[in-house]
Amino acid sequence: MKKGIAASKGYAIGKVFIQEHEEIVITEEKVTDIVAEKAKLQKALEASKVQLEAIKAKAEESMGAEKAAVFEAHITLLDDPEFTGAMELEIENNQSNGLKAIADVTNTFVMIFESMDDAYMRERAADIKDVSKRITANFAGKGGVDFAITEANTIVVAHDLTPSDTAQLDRSKVVAFLTNIGGRTSHSAIMARTLEIPAIVGLKDITTTVKNGDIVIVDGIEGIAIINPDEATLDAYEAKREEFLAEQEELKKLISVKTTTKSGKRVEVCGNIGKPEDVHQVLANGGDGVGLFRTEFLYMDRDSAPTEDEQYDSYKYVLEKMQGKQVVIRTLDIGGDKTLPYLPLPEEMNPFLGYRAIRLCLDRKEIFKVQLRALLRASIYGKLAVMFPMISGLEEFVAAKEVVDECKAELKAEGKAYSEDIQWGIMVEIPAAAVYADELAKHVDFFSIGTNDLIQYTLAADRMSEKVSYLYNPMHPAVLRLIKMTIEGAHKHGKWVGMCGEMAGDEAAIPTLVEYGLDEFSMSASSILGAKKIIIDQQ
Amino acid sequence: MKKGIAASKGYAIGKVFIQEHEEIVITEEKVTDIVAEKAKLQKALEASKVQLEAIKAKAEESMGAEKAAVFEAHITLLDDPEFTGAMELEIENNQSNGLKAIADVTNTFVMIFESMDDAYMRERAADIKDVSKRITANFAGKGGVDFAITEANTIVVAHDLTPSDTAQLDRSKVVAFLTNIGGRTSHSAIMARTLEIPAIVGLKDITTTVKNGDIVIVDGIEGIAIINPDEATLDAYEAKREEFLAEQEELKKLISVKTTTKSGKRVEVCGNIGKPEDVHQVLANGGDGVGLFRTEFLYMDRDSAPTEDEQYDSYKYVLEKMQGKQVVIRTLDIGGDKTLPYLPLPEEMNPFLGYRAIRLCLDRKEIFKVQLRALLRASIYGKLAVMFPMISGLEEFVAAKEVVDECKAELKAEGKAYSEDIQWGIMVEIPAAAVYADELAKHVDFFSIGTNDLIQYTLAADRMSEKVSYLYNPMHPAVLRLIKMTIEGAHKHGKWVGMCGEMAGDEAAIPTLVEYGLDEFSMSASSILGAKKIIIDQQ
Repeated sequence: MKKGIAASKGYAIGKVFIQEHEEIVITEEKVTDIVAEKAKLQKALEASKVQLEAIKAKAEESMGAEKAAVFEAHITLLDDPEFTGAMELEIENNQSNGLKAIADVTNTFVMIFESMDDAYMRERAADIKDVSKRITANFAGKGGVDFAITEANTIVVAHDLTPSDTAQLDRSKVVAFLTNIGGRTSHSAIMARTLEIPAIVGLKDITTTVKNGDIVIVDGIEGIAIINPDEATLDAYEAKREEFLAEQEELKKLISVKTTTKSGKRVEVCGNIGKPEDVHQVLANGGDGVGLFRTEFLYMDRDSAPTEDEQYDSYKYVLEKMQGKQVVIRTLDIGGDKTLPYLPLPEEMNPFLGYRAIRLCLDRKEIFKVQLRALLRASIYGKLAVMFPMISGLEEFVAAKEVVDECKAELKAEGKAYSEDIQWGIMVEIPAAAVYADELAKHVDFFSIGTNDLIQYTLAADRMSEKVSYLYNPMHPAVLRLIKMTIEGAHKHGKWVGMCGEMAGDEAAIPTLVEYGLDEFSMSASSILGAKKIIIDQQ
Repeated sequence: MKKGIAASKGYAIGKVFIQEHEEIVITEEKVTDIVAEKAKLQKALEASKVQLEAIKAKAEESMGAEKAAVFEAHITLLDDPEFTGAMELEIENNQSNGLKAIADVTNTFVMIFESMDDAYMRERAADIKDVSKRITANFAGKGGVDFAITEANTIVVAHDLTPSDTAQLDRSKVVAFLTNIGGRTSHSAIMARTLEIPAIVGLKDITTTVKNGDIVIVDGIEGIAIINPDEATLDAYEAKREEFLAEQEELKKLISVKTTTKSGKRVEVCGNIGKPEDVHQVLANGGDGVGLFRTEFLYMDRDSAPTEDEQYDSYKYVLEKMQGKQVVIRTLDIGGDKTLPYLPLPEEMNPFLGYRAIRLCLDRKEIFKVQLRALLRASIYGKLAVMFPMISGLEEFVAAKEVVDECKAELKAEGKAYSEDIQWGIMVEIPAAAVYADELAKHVDFFSIGTNDLIQYTLAADRMSEKVSYLYNPMHPAVLRLIKMTIEGAHKHGKWVGMCGEMAGDEAAIPTLVEYGLDEFSMSASSILGAKKIIIDQQ
C-alpha cells in the first residue's frame, strides 16, 4: 500500500501500465550539412504541430476550452523565434546536431523560468519541457504514438504526466493514473479532475514499486494505492467503487432540480468559466447561471489585446447560450501573478499587494473602455451582471461606474444598443470591502466574495509560498466573520451576495455558508451537483 | 516660489549656500607602480574610516544611535573584501588607476543593488555611492572638509544630500536645506526631522533656480521655498517662524506632564526605539514608557546573531534606564523587506505575505529561544511587556507562549532569575487579528496595533509600490473600523490597547483614536510632545 496526494476522486481497480518515454541519447557530434539538419528540425516542428493540434482538439472535447488552452500556448511556442528560432541558430552557428540544439535551447529557457519565484513562470518551464520532449521525439523519429494502451481497465503509472500526456488518456481504457511527483494543483491533477479519472500524485517511487501487469486499487479519495490486493480487499473496494458510481448517478438527477434548502430558501448554484465554450459544461451540470466569467483568459496567450468586437462576440456567445440565466462577468483582473506579454507591468516587490485588476483598469482607461463597451453592447443578449475586481473602497466603484457612463454616452452617440438592466457589483476580496460591506451595499447591486484573495489578505499569507501556505485556512474564525459581515451588510440593503472563490465549492464549508445566508454559490462545473446535494440537505 | 515635498517641518529664513561636490576626473590611465597605487588606496580607506568614525560619533550625539547606525554600516563597507577588496584586485589585475578601480567596482555594486525591486536594497545602493564618493575624494586628496559653512543662517541647497552630508550639518549655522531629489522617506528627510531642521526635498531644479547668497524662505510645513521675497512676505514668515518656535517652546513644558483628556482619561504617550541608547530621547521628550522596542536592529549589520548575553545586556539597559516605566519589547520581526546576512530566507513572490516575524520564530525555535531567554532574564530590572509580531490567530500566540514556558523551565533549572510579572501581548497588524480581537483578548495581556502593516493588508496595497501607494490611507473607513473593533474587543475583557504604527503619531488621526479609547500611543520621540498637546485637548 502506498500513500500519495489524492488528486482526483473516485475508485478504480485495474492493471498497471508503466509509461516510460524512450531515452533519446544526445551526442556532442557536429554536423556538416547544416541545410539538411535545419530541414530535419523543421520537419520535427511540423510533426509536433500536427500532433498538438490533434491533442488540442481532443482536449477541447474532453475537458473544455479553458483547460485545452495550454495546447494553444504549446503550438505558439513552436513558432517562437526566441525558442525554435534559437535552435536553428544553434545548428547554423555552432554546427550543433539537431538534438543537441533542441536540448541546449530548452535547458537555457527552463533554467531561466525555473529560477523565477513565480508559479506562473514555473508552469511555463513545464510547458517548455513538454514541447521540447515532443520535438526531440519527432526529430529522433520516435514521436507520434504517445500512448500505446490497448487494454481496458488500465492504470497508467508514470514519473510525471505532461499536460499533453494527460490530455491523450483514452477514457475508454484508462481508469486511473499514478505519478511519482506532482501536487494537487499541478497540471496533470487538474486535468484528471476535469476528465473525472481517479488519480494519485506525489507517490515518490511508484514507478519502481509496481511492475507492468500488477493489479492496483486506486483510492482517489484517500490518496491510497493498494498493490496486488487480496480477494477481501478487492471485494471491499469493488463495493466502494460501485457505491461511488451510484452516488454519481444519483447526483445526475439533480441536474434539472432547483436548489432549495429545507426551510425553503432558494439558492443559486452557478459555474465559473474561463472561455466562452465552458458554458456548455455549466449547463450540462445543471448550473443556474455563470457566477464568474474570468475574462483575463480572453487576453492571455496572444500578442495583442482582444478588440472590442472579439470581446463582444465572446460575451454575446455566453449570454445567448445561457438563455436568460444570469451571467456575472468580471472585468479584467490582470497583474499580481498574471501578466500579459503586450502589457508590461512595473516590477513590484509584492505583486499581490500591487498594481492589478481595477487599479490598473482605472489607470489605463483606454484598455478598460474596450471591455466595458463590449460588455454594454453584448448586454442585450441575456441577463448580464458585471463586477469589478479588487475594490477596496467606494471611490473605486464610483470611478469605474463613471467610465461605464462615458462608454454608454459614446454608444448612444454611435447609435449602438445596450441594456439598462445590467447589474453592477464588486468582488469582495480585499478585507476593507468586507469590513465596510454595509456601506458599500448602499451603492452596488451585488457582491461576489472572492475567497482565494480574501483569505490571503485577511491572514497575510500567500498560499503560493510553501513556508506559510499552512496558514491559508478558509475556516479561520476571522475569515468566517468577514464573510458573515459581508452577507449581513448586503442583506441590510436588500442586495444579494454570491461567492466565486474555491470555498464556494468546498463541501465542508457549504453548510456554514448556507447558514450565513449566502444567495449564490459559483464553482467549477464539476462541483455543481455535489454542492446542490449538500445545500438541499441544509436547514 | 518653488513647491516641493515637505520633509521636515518648521520655518527658516536664510542665505543660500549651494553645495557642489568638486568634480573629480577619472581617466583610463594604467599604472605601473601597483604597490604604490594600492598603498594610496589603503590610505584613502583609512582616511575615510577616520572621517566616518567622527561623523558617526557626531550623529549619535545629534540624532541618536538608531539613525547613526547607518555610518556603522558605511564603516563596515570599508573593510568589505567584496567591495574595497575588489578595488585592490582591479589595480593588481588590470593595472587600473585607483580612481578608476573605485569607480568600476562601485558601478557594478550600484547596478546590482539598484536593479533589485526592494527598497532595502536600493537604500544599500545609496550607501555604497555615499561611501564611494568619500573614498574617491580622499584618494584625490580632496576629502576631509565636507562642508565649509562659516556663516550663520545658511540654507544648504544641493542636488541630493547623502546621509553623511546631512549628519555633518552644523545646526548652529545651517537653518534649513533644500534638494532637487528625494522623498519624505529618503535618508536625508528622516535625518532632517531628527535634527529638527526644516527641509524641502524633491524640488527638481532648485540648484539651478537659486544662486549663492540669495535670500530664501523655507516653509517646511507646506513644502514651499520663496526666493528673494519682498519685505512684507519676509515679515509674515518671520512672524510664522516665531510663532512656530514659541509653540515648540510651549510643548517643552509638557515634558513632565501626565497626559489626561478633558474627561479625565489617562493616556500613555510612549516612544518607539530601535537601539538601546534611543531611550534617552524618549525620556528627554517626556515619554511615559517605550511602546515599541524593535529588536531586529540588534540583529542587523552584523555577521552572526546576537548572543543571549548581548541581548540581555541591551534589554537590561533599556529597562533600567526607564526606571520602572513600561517597556514593550517586540520579538524578532525579520523577513518581509528586512533580511539578515546570516539567516538566509526562501525567495518568495510576495515577501510581505510570507515567511516572517512569528512565523519564522516558531519555525526556528533555536533562534527564538535565545531572545526569549534574554528577555526573561532581563525582566527583573524593570516593567517588561513582550509582544509577538504578525499574529494571525490564537494558535500562534499559544505556541509562542509554550516556547516561553520551555525557556522559563530551563532558566529555573539553571537557577537563573526572571520576573513572573511580565505582560504578554500581540501586535494587531494582520486583519484577522483585528476582526477576531474580542476572542484573542481573552488570552493576551494587551494589544499593540501596528498600523503600517494593518493598513497595507486591509487595503491590499503595498505602500512601497509607487503605483498603488495612493491607496494607503490610515483614515480609510475600514481601517478605522478595524481599529475600533480591536479596542472594543480588548476593553470587553479588561485589556489595554496601544498603537505603535506611524498613525499613532499622526496629529490628524489622534483625536479619532482618543475617541475610540486607545490607551497608549507610541511614536518617534520627536512626536511625543505634539501628541501630548493634542490629547490633552480632547474630550
